[in-house]
Amino acid sequence: MSVKCFSAPTPTPLLTQDDLKKLAAYKAVDYVSSGMVLGLGTGSTAAFVVSRIGELLKSGELKNIVGVPTSKRTQEQAASLGIPLSILDDHPNIDLAIDGADEVDPFLNLVKGRGGALLREKMVEAASAKFVVVVDDTKLVSGLGGSGLAMPVEVVQFCWKYNLVRLQEIFKGEGCEAKLRVDGDGKPYVTDNSNYIVDLYFKTPIKDAGSAGKEISSLEGVVEHGLFLDMATAVIVAGKEGVTVQTK
Amino acid sequence: MSVKCFSAPTPTPLLTQDDLKKLAAYKAVDYVSSGMVLGLGTGSTAAFVVSRIGELLKSGELKNIVGVPTSKRTQEQAASLGIPLSILDDHPNIDLAIDGADEVDPFLNLVKGRGGALLREKMVEAASAKFVVVVDDTKLVSGLGGSGLAMPVEVVQFCWKYNLVRLQEIFKGEGCEAKLRVDGDGKPYVTDNSNYIVDLYFKTPIKDAGSAGKEISSLEGVVEHGLFLDMATAVIVAGKEGVTVQTK
Repeated sequence: MSVKCFSAPTPTPLLTQDDLKKLAAYKAVDYVSSGMVLGLGTGSTAAFVVSRIGELLKSGELKNIVGVPTSKRTQEQAASLGIPLSILDDHPNIDLAIDGADEVDPFLNLVKGRGGALLREKMVEAASAKFVVVVDDTKLVSGLGGSGLAMPVEVVQFCWKYNLVRLQEIFKGEGCEAKLRVDGDGKPYVTDNSNYIVDLYFKTPIKDAGSAGKEISSLEGVVEHGLFLDMATAVIVAGKEGVTVQTK
Repeated sequence: MSVKCFSAPTPTPLLTQDDLKKLAAYKAVDYVSSGMVLGLGTGSTAAFVVSRIGELLKSGELKNIVGVPTSKRTQEQAASLGIPLSILDDHPNIDLAIDGADEVDPFLNLVKGRGGALLREKMVEAASAKFVVVVDDTKLVSGLGGSGLAMPVEVVQFCWKYNLVRLQEIFKGEGCEAKLRVDGDGKPYVTDNSNYIVDLYFKTPIKDAGSAGKEISSLEGVVEHGLFLDMATAVIVAGKEGVTVQTK
């Protein structure tokens, strides 16, 4: 793995987390060139990416871009900026996907999907020749699940409680607590695909993310999980000291 | 594997396919005893099983049965017969499941789900200590996919066409044709879980069902598939010559 440092737009201690996300997002858009089919991520950092691509299309610096959005939210944002859009059905081969992440480990493995779009994100990003991740440095962890925040699993609504118990059981060793995600009204959160999300919270990081991912996927009724392993080509990290690019 | 023959209700050439299904269904219900939590299958053969259990509860020959249905259809039938019902959330450990199958190979591996209930069937039957399959002898094949009829795969609606193409690609060697399942009006058939079904039709049987199953499951957006491997405890087959029981 290599880490490159850029003496990018001299950051000052006054930069907010949003400024850092924007810095990373702009750096990621450097990877975009005219004529590309682009996977467009979901979340606050990805929104800066989409917005920047919209600007460059408008100014004419980018041309002939086709965007494949990973959520209804991103689709709406991109459409409002005039970015031509398509879907995997019509563009099954994507040149480059750019998206945020909730956690990044030292091997560039990710936790994603706290925004609820994990399935569409994984479909689009797995179909991408390159996948560039943009995060601020609060997302770096020594082991996945180590942030104490949720690792989401999308499950069918049918017998979600049964699967919640089974998921918790897989991670007994990590002191896992599984919770059904609810929206503001206390009702179950429903994904774009009409499924529920079970959020897993870990006391200690996941010991073997690879085998955990396989075990989760093998449960009937699990649609997708938030472990994105061996998928990222590069991770762009914005911190108070500047922007770094990590590659494998 | 052992095959037992029963000189059961002497069958005659006048028996219809429905009679054969009924014969097998009644034989399967011999496995049921009072106090059991039962997985109730879906389809024409399973309907005879549910109906027979209802009779035996009514006559008092069976007591304290709890049924866990594998579809809304079966739930309605069982409820109408007064069979007490539950769900996996409340009864995660099932003593015995009984269900039909679309194909049975010599190793008791199955294709299931032409009725569209494959996900719930697999969830319930994987949670069962014993799984007894009931079929008439037209369902026996030398290799899965060999009947020329559909092997169903449940996929999320999002970019179903993308997954249809990927599924067809997995089975290039078997001359596979993949089709979206439609209902009577020509609209996509929607499962109990709000997903679509892609039906796979093979020119030659599936060469390696085990690795095929894993490959299908690894596709993002695939929810479940109709290969039920290493799950059946016994298969009850009704043919013109009587009822046989195959076990591993």
